[in-house]
Amino acid sequence: MIDLNLIGIGTGDPDHVTQQAIAAMNAADLILIPLKGPEKTELAELRRCLLAQHLNNPTTRVVEFDLPERDADGAPYDQRVSDWHDAIAQAWKTAITEALGTEADANVALLIWGDPMLYDSSLRIAERLGHRMQITPRVIPGITAIQALCAAHAIPLNGVGAPVTLTTGRQLRNHGWPDGVQTVVVMLDGDCAFRALDPAGIEIWWGGCVAMPQERLVAGTLAEVAEKIVTIRAALRAELGWVMDIYLMRRTA
Amino acid sequence: MIDLNLIGIGTGDPDHVTQQAIAAMNAADLILIPLKGPEKTELAELRRCLLAQHLNNPTTRVVEFDLPERDADGAPYDQRVSDWHDAIAQAWKTAITEALGTEADANVALLIWGDPMLYDSSLRIAERLGHRMQITPRVIPGITAIQALCAAHAIPLNGVGAPVTLTTGRQLRNHGWPDGVQTVVVMLDGDCAFRALDPAGIEIWWGGCVAMPQERLVAGTLAEVAEKIVTIRAALRAELGWVMDIYLMRRTA
Repeated sequence: MIDLNLIGIGTGDPDHVTQQAIAAMNAADLILIPLKGPEKTELAELRRCLLAQHLNNPTTRVVEFDLPERDADGAPYDQRVSDWHDAIAQAWKTAITEALGTEADANVALLIWGDPMLYDSSLRIAERLGHRMQITPRVIPGITAIQALCAAHAIPLNGVGAPVTLTTGRQLRNHGWPDGVQTVVVMLDGDCAFRALDPAGIEIWWGGCVAMPQERLVAGTLAEVAEKIVTIRAALRAELGWVMDIYLMRRTA
Repeated sequence: MIDLNLIGIGTGDPDHVTQQAIAAMNAADLILIPLKGPEKTELAELRRCLLAQHLNNPTTRVVEFDLPERDADGAPYDQRVSDWHDAIAQAWKTAITEALGTEADANVALLIWGDPMLYDSSLRIAERLGHRMQITPRVIPGITAIQALCAAHAIPLNGVGAPVTLTTGRQLRNHGWPDGVQTVVVMLDGDCAFRALDPAGIEIWWGGCVAMPQERLVAGTLAEVAEKIVTIRAALRAELGWVMDIYLMRRTA
């Protein structure tokens, strides 16, 4: 039986890592590090740094493997995501069996950006891996980009006793401001979907590469800072070849 | 100038603490530990254990102080919360000035359950403290109950690319299922507000005292497990004199 540890490692600050995550790294027989694309190279490097700092178990093997890429088009979105998750599950299985051979019991770990629960596919991929080999998934939570954003701006996520909706750029673009909430957090937004909103009465707290050395923060009324965010985001992307960003918006009552 | 460090410490598992939190504890001149009520006694004890494990700076002073209680009734809810936050800000100021005297520059820390951004009043209290003395708030994120719940059940928070609403028991009771989302997380629910919903098509993942030694987990269809949760929650409360719980619900499409 394989114990599959999905270890949340936070969002770029190596000090985000928890004691539980460090213990799980050191309890692993095998740690898999995925490689692909420019941001993945940087994230792989961050994972190597974390391990150099915290992994003291000389029997833990660290193996890098190539992630398959998602088809850019063709089948409908859901089908493409599903096929991609299947391909990744197969890549995990191949990497595990190549490294461990026929070992019946082992502790395998993956270092997951942020927390495996939040806009991350590793739990769904683990479920597909479970159709291919016997595994027990185990989750170690990590600091998410939402927390890093709120900490960087020193703001609360929610109003007093009030609800919050977490959503994606695609949802915001297609469905507008979610009903019934004053606070919205947007992730996975490749194209500054806040520009699709009427900015009246909306404040925004934005972060690019939050908690990383390249961190940029902008806060203000959406009317005043929207273009500034678009510009800074484009500059970060031009500089790095990739960018990760997140933002929180509040509507004044 | 006082640097006021609000350090998220997670939700009961001492290994939730991050490297950043440990560094912030050890950089503090003064750590304040609030005391009040039965659950506060247990939480104060957890904070003492964390410090015993991680605080190595012999010059850091640890001071316990009594938190004022919130008026149970009288003024409207918002006014009572506001008055309470003012009273706590005053208690922080008194504790800081008693401990530090006229020291002009100091690093003060509070250990915050979960993460200061999420259904926590410490940032709002810090703002009120800022009206009474010169402070700079600094936030160190910590693992939230939402993350501990999802990790314990090994489930993702969101559906693929789908939004999630975080809300309170009071909101759920007064406004029903939030519009436009399949996933809802409920916190601060003193009275099992899920019972106010039509359970058809709803799954629930519940946790009481998540990530603590007393942790209890229940998952299933709301129709089947609602009464079980009510019973287990009441038993935990009877045993401990207090209970903290949280749940995630998903509507099948």
